Amino acid sequence: MWPDRKFLDLAGVDLPVIQAPMAGANGSAMAIQVCKAGGLGSLPCAVLNAKEVRSEIQVIRQHVSGPLNVNFFCHADPESNPDQDAAWKQRLAIYYDEYGLDASVATPSVRRSPFNSEMCEIVEEYKPEVVSFHFGLPQSALVQRVKKAGCLILSSATTVDEAHWLEQHGCDAIIAQGYEAGGHRGMFITKDINAQPGTLALVPQVVDAVDVPVIAAGGIADGRGIAAAFALGASAVQVGTAYLFTPQSLISDLHRAALHSARDDQTMLTNVFSGKPARSIVNRVMREVGPLSDKAPAFPTAGSALAALKVQAEALSKADFSSLWSGQAASLCHETSAFDLTRKLADDTRRCLETLASNLQD
Amino acid sequence: MWPDRKFLDLAGVDLPVIQAPMAGANGSAMAIQVCKAGGLGSLPCAVLNAKEVRSEIQVIRQHVSGPLNVNFFCHADPESNPDQDAAWKQRLAIYYDEYGLDASVATPSVRRSPFNSEMCEIVEEYKPEVVSFHFGLPQSALVQRVKKAGCLILSSATTVDEAHWLEQHGCDAIIAQGYEAGGHRGMFITKDINAQPGTLALVPQVVDAVDVPVIAAGGIADGRGIAAAFALGASAVQVGTAYLFTPQSLISDLHRAALHSARDDQTMLTNVFSGKPARSIVNRVMREVGPLSDKAPAFPTAGSALAALKVQAEALSKADFSSLWSGQAASLCHETSAFDLTRKLADDTRRCLETLASNLQD
Repeated sequence: MWPDRKFLDLAGVDLPVIQAPMAGANGSAMAIQVCKAGGLGSLPCAVLNAKEVRSEIQVIRQHVSGPLNVNFFCHADPESNPDQDAAWKQRLAIYYDEYGLDASVATPSVRRSPFNSEMCEIVEEYKPEVVSFHFGLPQSALVQRVKKAGCLILSSATTVDEAHWLEQHGCDAIIAQGYEAGGHRGMFITKDINAQPGTLALVPQVVDAVDVPVIAAGGIADGRGIAAAFALGASAVQVGTAYLFTPQSLISDLHRAALHSARDDQTMLTNVFSGKPARSIVNRVMREVGPLSDKAPAFPTAGSALAALKVQAEALSKADFSSLWSGQAASLCHETSAFDLTRKLADDTRRCLETLASNLQD
Repeated sequence: MWPDRKFLDLAGVDLPVIQAPMAGANGSAMAIQVCKAGGLGSLPCAVLNAKEVRSEIQVIRQHVSGPLNVNFFCHADPESNPDQDAAWKQRLAIYYDEYGLDASVATPSVRRSPFNSEMCEIVEEYKPEVVSFHFGLPQSALVQRVKKAGCLILSSATTVDEAHWLEQHGCDAIIAQGYEAGGHRGMFITKDINAQPGTLALVPQVVDAVDVPVIAAGGIADGRGIAAAFALGASAVQVGTAYLFTPQSLISDLHRAALHSARDDQTMLTNVFSGKPARSIVNRVMREVGPLSDKAPAFPTAGSALAALKVQAEALSKADFSSLWSGQAASLCHETSAFDLTRKLADDTRRCLETLASNLQD
């Protein structure tokens, strides 16, 4: 029923749609609906502590028994850099002044944590069918433990070079994440976003370079994009932005409103919210401080100095200091449940493929 | 035989492949082979004078009677800006010193000229089936003359906004040019390359926005990319980089060698060669002066100060100061004739579509 079954058979999933794990923007509720619909639901754990991860997995397992993807970041924790932190605070001082805030108050610590032995124990206990990583892979001993637990391992490549590395270091399937994708680039070898290939160019080059199944990501928001991904040689797709439009997404009303009016040319890659490049709908802080600032402290700490500004601005219904993650195809998305979205993506893909095929036979 | 015939029927072309007009890199020889194979061959006229345009069209008409695309730039000629020219020369002074060149010698004038009444007379005389423009459209009186001559009008949109504008101003079909594309962006409303959508995100959004046929461009170099473009709703594709690999391309041996070894992540958008952003394989001047320099004079003049450096470096077999136009999918390309490439692109597309269809029926 699908042009390529390599990933479906490997992961035991019915539909070729992975719901992108979106740290802070989705929890168990979205993953449950996607799994129930036959897609691969994902639980992002980067901003959860161990207790929360256990609790969320338990909730999911109470509702669905099918394949589940549990996702972790695996960045290196940054070294302390008080000079850079001070320079960043200085760059933001005009906004602190504008809101009458005291810039000398210590900024809150950031919750994004890399995968570690404690999280690995949870993986070993619950044995999710799939464990996906962002920003490369954790150290090899942890990778081996995840493999031993029987989980498939996925990670994102933004270049052919990264795809090669991931295959050589144990990935069972590779997410080819193109330039169009919303949120954080999974980039971990290259640091140069100016050289990042778009999805249409990246996917076939990754497919040619590796033997494992390739999952296309970036700018895919409807059945046409999924059919196109199959044409390019992908075995499945990962969809993020479209799931932000569901009631199961945890984003703010301001973020939701921005997504509903976002045009094709209103997102940019920015490092101001975290320290690593991520695609967001353009807002004031991106325009005035970024989109890319060499003053932004290392990932994941850059956002903490924006936290107080974000709270103040959001209280005035302004998203001036809020990350508004989005890919480049938000205008293709509509509000619907995560269950219905998953089914609709699959149905529309089938219809698109059937139309391509029928016109071919005429 | 093709999933969408809107553009094929409109232009009377057999195969859904437009050979991208590549100013300086192709002339009549390439266009003739593409037309003979059943695609839409293109003659770029931006660096030709009226006599050369006539001569090239005559040569093509002697060999093929099928549809032909004649392409023009329609940028505004820049105002003279001696201060900026001097600052640019100053920025490049270290390289003049390195090569023992006198930076005070006047730089050669640039040959890229916008479409004008004289060129329009040639269009009216030879009536090519298709006239395509880059950087928007010429003034309305010229557009009307081209229409009256019976030519279809095409131009490139890099955003949905530009696509709307082109449809409203008389385009019969719109080239949706994604971020991946090699050479100059056709951008004419937006100036912000950081917000440019990738092909996979752009094409369906343009298809939804306009009623005229949409031609996908950017990162398409094989049958998989063309099949993907059809899935996204395109009626045809425009392919550039793959045609640079043919013996009919006029590029230098250095450019050819760079293309043969270019990886997915080795191109960037740069303004150092012309003043407008264009995608090139990264070389020394892009790395050291660009890729984007606010010192680069307005299009099309920036390149003239590089001309002497280019000559000196190329004599030493170095492409340090040469534009190395390429899209992001050069690694998918192979050396073959423009005739064979056109046929192979079409055959591979059919095969890709048939495979998608047959797996669907299993």
